[in-house]
Amino acid sequence: MNNESRIKALLFDVFGTVVDWRSGVARDVSSFLSRQAISADAFKFADAWRRQYSPAMEEVRSGRRPFVRLDLLHMENLVKVLTDFGVNVGSIPAEDLVELNLAWHRLDPWPDSVEGLLRMKRRFIIAPLSNGNIRLMVDMAKRAALPWDAILGAEVIRAYKPTPRVYSDTVELLGLNPAEVCMVAAHNADLAAARQCGLRTAFIARPLEHGPSQQTDLKAEQDWDFIGESLNDVATQLGCPT
Amino acid sequence: MNNESRIKALLFDVFGTVVDWRSGVARDVSSFLSRQAISADAFKFADAWRRQYSPAMEEVRSGRRPFVRLDLLHMENLVKVLTDFGVNVGSIPAEDLVELNLAWHRLDPWPDSVEGLLRMKRRFIIAPLSNGNIRLMVDMAKRAALPWDAILGAEVIRAYKPTPRVYSDTVELLGLNPAEVCMVAAHNADLAAARQCGLRTAFIARPLEHGPSQQTDLKAEQDWDFIGESLNDVATQLGCPT
Repeated sequence: MNNESRIKALLFDVFGTVVDWRSGVARDVSSFLSRQAISADAFKFADAWRRQYSPAMEEVRSGRRPFVRLDLLHMENLVKVLTDFGVNVGSIPAEDLVELNLAWHRLDPWPDSVEGLLRMKRRFIIAPLSNGNIRLMVDMAKRAALPWDAILGAEVIRAYKPTPRVYSDTVELLGLNPAEVCMVAAHNADLAAARQCGLRTAFIARPLEHGPSQQTDLKAEQDWDFIGESLNDVATQLGCPT
Repeated sequence: MNNESRIKALLFDVFGTVVDWRSGVARDVSSFLSRQAISADAFKFADAWRRQYSPAMEEVRSGRRPFVRLDLLHMENLVKVLTDFGVNVGSIPAEDLVELNLAWHRLDPWPDSVEGLLRMKRRFIIAPLSNGNIRLMVDMAKRAALPWDAILGAEVIRAYKPTPRVYSDTVELLGLNPAEVCMVAAHNADLAAARQCGLRTAFIARPLEHGPSQQTDLKAEQDWDFIGESLNDVATQLGCPT
């Protein structure tokens, strides 16, 4: 029996795997900086904002802080980064901060994402397994036409990847065995955690996620069950008709 | 300001409101009874199965039992009803019981449901707020082309309607205020519970939900914010283009 014959559901990392967060965030940062007459590089700002992402979640993963949704962590991180960039945050209207924080709800898919997901949806249950919260994933999906069957992920489980129960409890919610579920991600660490929980794994290289000088996740670091160049490519490997 | 101008999300009761559970369950019961050579009326059997629904959930609502998903309650109820119908359940292969239990995943929408939801989806976030579990809702949606933006409801909150926090915590998950959310249901009691939590309410009469001699929920019993004859009708009242 080949791998794909038992798979019933595909779970997706989203930031970097399905959507291009760096360009989208930099776009909204750029217009924010202009409006606020702040001189800074929008891509550097986006990268600095993203660097706060994992440490902020680690407070929750470690148990030092109860679960809070990613929208709140993004807002706290935004205040930190603005301060690091020398901005007096108190001088910025709160509604402008809220609006900029919604940049993460308005990210564009990579060019192959929507077609790949539509092909996969005809054969499998498809859902995000992202650290993004439910409303963020819903807003993003409606804007970008991501055809999810359900919105699963960190907020449903109230824990952040790569905490094992995010994967295991999601599989359980779907009424499936781990081997019937395949995690799809552009990040080797995410797949390693999923594999530890018994899930199948599919790696997609996204060499521009972190911009032109990306050093990490340029290639598969384990013998993942599927390794593709795009969601479309993985759809083909999974036997999804075009 | 009129009611609909503030609404951002519509939450739907599903069994009876969006789909016709009685015909669908009776259809699968009928073929099950034939295969097992059991003589019984399929509609009476479906009605008996459904009568166990609320008492089974009440065990969880009352706190006498921890939350378990509806698929399990449906299976326990099926065993009870078969026994009540004089069937020796032990003589039936387990896989046949599992297969029949999936009847609840294979229900057909009322004729207006898909069109109404598609119209509403263009203007609002739409999601089930059903006592059905996530996998049940996903299977039903894929089969019936229900275009949900997310799968919310009892299993996400781990409590059964009409427990107030099912409504309140779902509103909170969406990052909305209760007045920005409208509960859509064919059941006055569901809407009364939602209204107690501050949600807007929309009633749709489904006079055939319980068959030709239905006595309950034939009309609106309070001045709900919207009262319609179909999802399409409510979509029009909410200002959704055709």
